[in-house]
Amino acid sequence: MTERVLIKDLSALADGPVSVSGWVETVRDQKKVQFVVLRDESGAVQLVNPRNSDADGVVIADEPATTISALTQGSFVTVTGQLKHDERVKLGGIEIKLDSLTVSTFALAETPIAADSGIDKRMDWRFLDLRVPRNALIFRIQTTLEHAFRTYWVERDYVELHTPKLMSSPSESNAELFKLDYFDTTAYLAQSPQHFKQMAQSAGFGKIFDIGPVFRADPSFTSRHATEYTGVDAEISWIDSHEDVMTMQEELLVAGFTAVAAKHGAEIKELFDVDVVVPSIPFPRIPLLEAKEIVASRGHVVDRNDDDMDPEGERQIAAYVEETFGHQFVFLTDYPTSIRPFYHMHSDENDALTKSYDLIFRGTEITTGAQREHRVDVLEAQAVAKGLDPNELSVYLDFFRYGVPPHGGFGMGLARVLMLLLHQGNLREVTYLFRGPTRLAP
Amino acid sequence: MTERVLIKDLSALADGPVSVSGWVETVRDQKKVQFVVLRDESGAVQLVNPRNSDADGVVIADEPATTISALTQGSFVTVTGQLKHDERVKLGGIEIKLDSLTVSTFALAETPIAADSGIDKRMDWRFLDLRVPRNALIFRIQTTLEHAFRTYWVERDYVELHTPKLMSSPSESNAELFKLDYFDTTAYLAQSPQHFKQMAQSAGFGKIFDIGPVFRADPSFTSRHATEYTGVDAEISWIDSHEDVMTMQEELLVAGFTAVAAKHGAEIKELFDVDVVVPSIPFPRIPLLEAKEIVASRGHVVDRNDDDMDPEGERQIAAYVEETFGHQFVFLTDYPTSIRPFYHMHSDENDALTKSYDLIFRGTEITTGAQREHRVDVLEAQAVAKGLDPNELSVYLDFFRYGVPPHGGFGMGLARVLMLLLHQGNLREVTYLFRGPTRLAP
Repeated sequence: MTERVLIKDLSALADGPVSVSGWVETVRDQKKVQFVVLRDESGAVQLVNPRNSDADGVVIADEPATTISALTQGSFVTVTGQLKHDERVKLGGIEIKLDSLTVSTFALAETPIAADSGIDKRMDWRFLDLRVPRNALIFRIQTTLEHAFRTYWVERDYVELHTPKLMSSPSESNAELFKLDYFDTTAYLAQSPQHFKQMAQSAGFGKIFDIGPVFRADPSFTSRHATEYTGVDAEISWIDSHEDVMTMQEELLVAGFTAVAAKHGAEIKELFDVDVVVPSIPFPRIPLLEAKEIVASRGHVVDRNDDDMDPEGERQIAAYVEETFGHQFVFLTDYPTSIRPFYHMHSDENDALTKSYDLIFRGTEITTGAQREHRVDVLEAQAVAKGLDPNELSVYLDFFRYGVPPHGGFGMGLARVLMLLLHQGNLREVTYLFRGPTRLAP
Repeated sequence: MTERVLIKDLSALADGPVSVSGWVETVRDQKKVQFVVLRDESGAVQLVNPRNSDADGVVIADEPATTISALTQGSFVTVTGQLKHDERVKLGGIEIKLDSLTVSTFALAETPIAADSGIDKRMDWRFLDLRVPRNALIFRIQTTLEHAFRTYWVERDYVELHTPKLMSSPSESNAELFKLDYFDTTAYLAQSPQHFKQMAQSAGFGKIFDIGPVFRADPSFTSRHATEYTGVDAEISWIDSHEDVMTMQEELLVAGFTAVAAKHGAEIKELFDVDVVVPSIPFPRIPLLEAKEIVASRGHVVDRNDDDMDPEGERQIAAYVEETFGHQFVFLTDYPTSIRPFYHMHSDENDALTKSYDLIFRGTEITTGAQREHRVDVLEAQAVAKGLDPNELSVYLDFFRYGVPPHGGFGMGLARVLMLLLHQGNLREVTYLFRGPTRLAP
């Protein structure tokens, strides 16, 4: 039997017998000849089957003609035939003249979604939606991006952690929290790996990363929020300030984007009309207060009750940075303590500011990072100042009571990076199976 | 300021000024000289501080002597001093004569665990337990093993998936299931990524892997069960049988073990007294029924109500394989349908058997794998035969109705592999933060 060949590898083969497997994209069942476009995970190819006639010129109902006539879109088949290079064939300049065709599964004839279906409908039938080459490519890009991240870290002796998602206490706040019955008690789903990343510093691990799910019982329906998403987290010891975290993160992103550009740049250009730009180092850094002045000078009044930037402000500062420095990334630094969690370290010079940052990519925040407060008395005081009960934080505070080095880290939303990298407007497009307030299936 | 050096890198440096950071393991505060053993993530080194005396020979309470006298075990410090190679120093033949010492955090004086603490007590104080070099090494090994797995897959064009953990229906069974309130409905925590791995085959992804948490509301307290653990999963299309899955998995394990042996073999020998054995390919394969006969001939009667092997049977067949083939792994194949889930494909020759396997490593099961039934009518009949309601499986069955290639895969418990690789008796030892019926913290 001929070994299966991926369709992308066909053009490099000489004319002759081949076997390919995939699903039926289109069938043109003409009187004298049948054409099938077959797609696999690597590409598409045209299959040709000239129909046989009897002595009187009447078409014979033989195989594989009869099966081809019955083929539905989406049916999975394996074919053998003769590969032929022919410049006149629009689809890659090759075709396969069929010898045999074996159907693995016939698809139901009526496909529930079409190219113009709305996003909710497409999510209902996500497994069909992902057959579209552009959509499938997203997850090949994600694979490359993540592997480049991990390789960057592994080469620098980071330890990969799998922090638990079941917790005895909330990891971030009492808001947006999923709870469940856990034998005789209650468990909470981790809103971030924050506690356990910091625990690794107390354990002396030095440098760690963790890529895994985080959960937010967030009832909002924006294009940028999900109830479950993949967090890309890192935490490192013996830093002098958040600047060390930022330096690591920009190197990490350069490693990731370099790998994506090298492996998928041409496909991304073809299917998304996007040029992958590998950012230069260092990324611009602007203190938040200065950024707000810049945004104000551009005529945008930030409309919030707190000291934070708003989404339009993020877009404006990104536009400013693009115009001024030609850069798609910007670190906003020195966030006020009022809008940061209690565990961010305060600035040495100004106790109203933190040693923290957000990273903005093409106008949208993808990361919060910070140096953490490691002095337990200061940490406890900061918790109390935020209205938290130190008793509820006792497990967490213990990590600091038995010694911990200065440390910091960041959390980054994987889907947000992909969304912005590929100029998509919605996390749903770049999440394998999106989870939102009204979306739990498939 | 002198840049921080990892302790493992000191011995390659020439005598002279260095800076190291880590935590205090021991202090010997003698009259004329103070010794501190300082540990970081890479090793331990002796610090020496000869005390200064006044003209009358009375010791002066100067720095860093006074701070050293106050040091508690576990305090995190940064020191600068003069590195000196000296063969007489037992700890690596080097020491650092102190110039300065800065304390980042003093640890509480009383350490709650000791070397002989029981495992539950150690788990209570896991961040201290993980400061023990042998325990920390486990997670460096895990990092290497996983990265080698992923590299094996990425080089072969697999797509890495992050399947959702929140589901609208149970992924495996109605037993051992965690439920939670999810806005106006109920969600279940994924017991495996089974549905979504198979969905990727219907989506035409071809080859995928997924490393992430899975959840089992299993009330048992054995050394081999956890309520949350890291699953290593893969699924591939266009297989001829489960044999193709087994071939991939054995190659994967060889890649992983080769990387671990190369990077950590010497440390594993030193700290665990274990030789990492890279297995030869192919692993032995024995049909389950034959394995049970072999076990019976060795005098062990399998004591179960079903057709499965029992733990002692797994140990016996592993002993047989070790004696006969000198191999630590064995695939048990062709499990009866009675003890397999409905979605395993039945054998072509014998409808009472499945095209499935378990992989036994050093006497304990680490994997279940199978070819899946991809013909929806057969799949539905098998579900009904198991007493399942096809209506409850409708989301899953849809994946098959619109076409799917023949496919199969496996799930492997990461901690089980580590436990057996390092000759440990308990998953708790090799899990960063174990979760069991009475263990939700830290």
